[in-house]
Amino acid sequence: MTFELTKEYLERIQTAIAEGDDALLRAEMEELYPADISGILYELGTEQARYLLSLLNRKVGAEILANLDPGDRKDFLEDFSSQELAPYVDEMDSDDAVDILNEQPIQIREEVIGLLEDREQARFILDLLHYDEDVAGGLMQKELIKINVELTVNQCIEEIRQQAENVEKVHVVYVVDDAGKLLGYVSLKRIVLSRKHAKIADIYDENIIFVETYRPVTEVAEIMQRYDLEAVPVVNVQGRLLGRITIDDIVDVITEKAEEDIQAISGISGEVVEDDNIWQRAKVQLPWLVAGAVGSLMAATVINGFQDELSQIAALAAFIPIIGSTGGNVGIQTASLIVQGLSDKAGLTASLGQRLLRTILVALINGLVVGLLAGAYTFIIGEPRLFFVVSTSLLSVVMLASFMGTITPLLLNRIGINPAVASGPFITTANDLIGIGVYFMIANLLLHL
Amino acid sequence: MTFELTKEYLERIQTAIAEGDDALLRAEMEELYPADISGILYELGTEQARYLLSLLNRKVGAEILANLDPGDRKDFLEDFSSQELAPYVDEMDSDDAVDILNEQPIQIREEVIGLLEDREQARFILDLLHYDEDVAGGLMQKELIKINVELTVNQCIEEIRQQAENVEKVHVVYVVDDAGKLLGYVSLKRIVLSRKHAKIADIYDENIIFVETYRPVTEVAEIMQRYDLEAVPVVNVQGRLLGRITIDDIVDVITEKAEEDIQAISGISGEVVEDDNIWQRAKVQLPWLVAGAVGSLMAATVINGFQDELSQIAALAAFIPIIGSTGGNVGIQTASLIVQGLSDKAGLTASLGQRLLRTILVALINGLVVGLLAGAYTFIIGEPRLFFVVSTSLLSVVMLASFMGTITPLLLNRIGINPAVASGPFITTANDLIGIGVYFMIANLLLHL
Repeated sequence: MTFELTKEYLERIQTAIAEGDDALLRAEMEELYPADISGILYELGTEQARYLLSLLNRKVGAEILANLDPGDRKDFLEDFSSQELAPYVDEMDSDDAVDILNEQPIQIREEVIGLLEDREQARFILDLLHYDEDVAGGLMQKELIKINVELTVNQCIEEIRQQAENVEKVHVVYVVDDAGKLLGYVSLKRIVLSRKHAKIADIYDENIIFVETYRPVTEVAEIMQRYDLEAVPVVNVQGRLLGRITIDDIVDVITEKAEEDIQAISGISGEVVEDDNIWQRAKVQLPWLVAGAVGSLMAATVINGFQDELSQIAALAAFIPIIGSTGGNVGIQTASLIVQGLSDKAGLTASLGQRLLRTILVALINGLVVGLLAGAYTFIIGEPRLFFVVSTSLLSVVMLASFMGTITPLLLNRIGINPAVASGPFITTANDLIGIGVYFMIANLLLHL
Repeated sequence: MTFELTKEYLERIQTAIAEGDDALLRAEMEELYPADISGILYELGTEQARYLLSLLNRKVGAEILANLDPGDRKDFLEDFSSQELAPYVDEMDSDDAVDILNEQPIQIREEVIGLLEDREQARFILDLLHYDEDVAGGLMQKELIKINVELTVNQCIEEIRQQAENVEKVHVVYVVDDAGKLLGYVSLKRIVLSRKHAKIADIYDENIIFVETYRPVTEVAEIMQRYDLEAVPVVNVQGRLLGRITIDDIVDVITEKAEEDIQAISGISGEVVEDDNIWQRAKVQLPWLVAGAVGSLMAATVINGFQDELSQIAALAAFIPIIGSTGGNVGIQTASLIVQGLSDKAGLTASLGQRLLRTILVALINGLVVGLLAGAYTFIIGEPRLFFVVSTSLLSVVMLASFMGTITPLLLNRIGINPAVASGPFITTANDLIGIGVYFMIANLLLHL
């Protein structure tokens, strides 16, 4: 039932574009939802995509553009003149229009706004351009239905009739006073079921959850998720209703946040798409590979400083991998647990002291288990004199890595950097280096080398 | 405006519970949304939480229980008898009711269903119990509003009046034929704005996206996200309308999926909550730490086998960390990129051959950069004879790790295991081990030791 893009289908479309078979293309696109057509555009060359878009009506075209991935959209729209872009912007929801305009150079942005036929849309856009994209104001759309609390249900339906043309999805009707202050809401269900002469004042619900324009989008996401909301009204500091945020935008926020976290943990710098060329692909991997290599070469310097010890007991080298990787693994685990705790704001959160205490106790258990395991191995390879060196080192490394894994994300969070970064190669490399240093120092101390 | 749980507030509630000040508790809870009361329950002891719950009306209590985290809820409901549980289940949406009953022992489950006063609810639950929780049928709720295509708008409003009592959120009214087959939908906006004697047949929209009961929930999530849906109807193979899935459940699916991925990447086994005790905490970390340790000890065995080489050139040990960590870092990066590509189903996906070719080319660039960097370091420490050993080894390790990072998630995905596992300690450890082996073999070959 939902559309599945196949190679054959795509070839048919490409042939039709090459042959200029507009009738076939229009008929095929008629069958699809805008989101599916966006999927097809990704697979076409820029010229082909432009041709296909030009055949569709403006409203559909606007939805397709709103659906594209921001990076791809910026590239795609690069050759559009302001005159070509404006008719699409006219037809978009105000939040999508602002997103697209923000991707354009300032000159194009101002020209497009000047060219808009829908002057209300132009006003909406100018309002929204003020806000940062990571606060509620930057995510809201101006399209909503609001009615004055003094009206009757019948008058309200008349208002809906007038306002609804521009508002695609109507969840509820917001109720405001003469000054535009948000008082509450009436669900459409309630309106359908009420007597026509009932007063809105008597039937509206005052219990309404709203957010202020300055709220971070992550908080808005958390609130909408906690209260299972499909839309949340946005007000200014005076409580005046300015816009609304719909759940589809929040779903995008949640998905993006998760992708960013996974990229941070995996040491990938920047977004990647399937059809990036190999240079772009290498570019997202290299920064962390090089940083990791530099860290490891610092570890190499440490090891090199203990050449005498190594030439006396060659078996010491055998434990370098377990020291390094255990430190890295513990660091990534601990940091991820802390990051998860930070994003889970359901209950009261533990104090730093409690967290550290618990971390240390857990590390003690983990360190003893891994330390004894590796210690046992010293007997297997016939180097029992390394037992205390290896097990004490591993215990210390696990404790240190746990400490680092707890502190680093908390610090990063405090200074406003995505704490998930701390779960990635950064912590792995740091722990690798610290671990090797600790190991050779302990070896030096215990073996009196 | 939204509720913020503070320590002071919690203490006031705990004191009121201890003193049995029911009036205060009822008044305080009256002010809160069920989701906020759930947050308070997490912070209370089981007895206190039960007491507080008993003061609230059944409908609110049912919402609170539906809001609790499944694991916590199971523990909390452990001491509830079937007689105590049934009144809450009576008031829940059918999907939540099924989730809770599935957490109970079979005997309790059957007793509760037998005790339900709302026999329609019992029938709904029995219907839903058939489905796996990871397909659309297992996520849907039976509560929805459907009308026969033969009705008029006026009759439809009458139907809404009768059906709406049990349906909290009405997005649209589904239109069915006499056999219950889904034909389309009418939005409430449309109903509000239509003439009362208009026929549903003339105003309903046939373009409706639906899913079949057997669709995996991840696909449902992808569809709802792609088409910005707030609810999607679920049909059986005959096209009969059976239920609907609402976006709040999908938001939960997306969030859980992201958390699972991050846990897999970080090597954490199982869910953790802030107030787990230290044993539970250690238990989620240890499986991977031990597995990683075993892998590293295998690497230790390899290194130990090259003791002669090491005692001849002690500096060889210095490069063990960079070999191990570069292999790990490349593996995690590559695997994450592949996992991301797997979950991004927007366009056509590259074939395995294309992926491998691109991976190899990218690895060539990355391997050359890191290899030359580490090669330069051999000059710095005055061991230029190691230049070719180190740079060739790193190039090989990067290529091998990229290959493993591409193949492993694809294989795991094919056999139905979460491919994100491949980005975690599994791949790090494997690459660590392979890398060390390659390094010493190349050293042996090139240096003729």
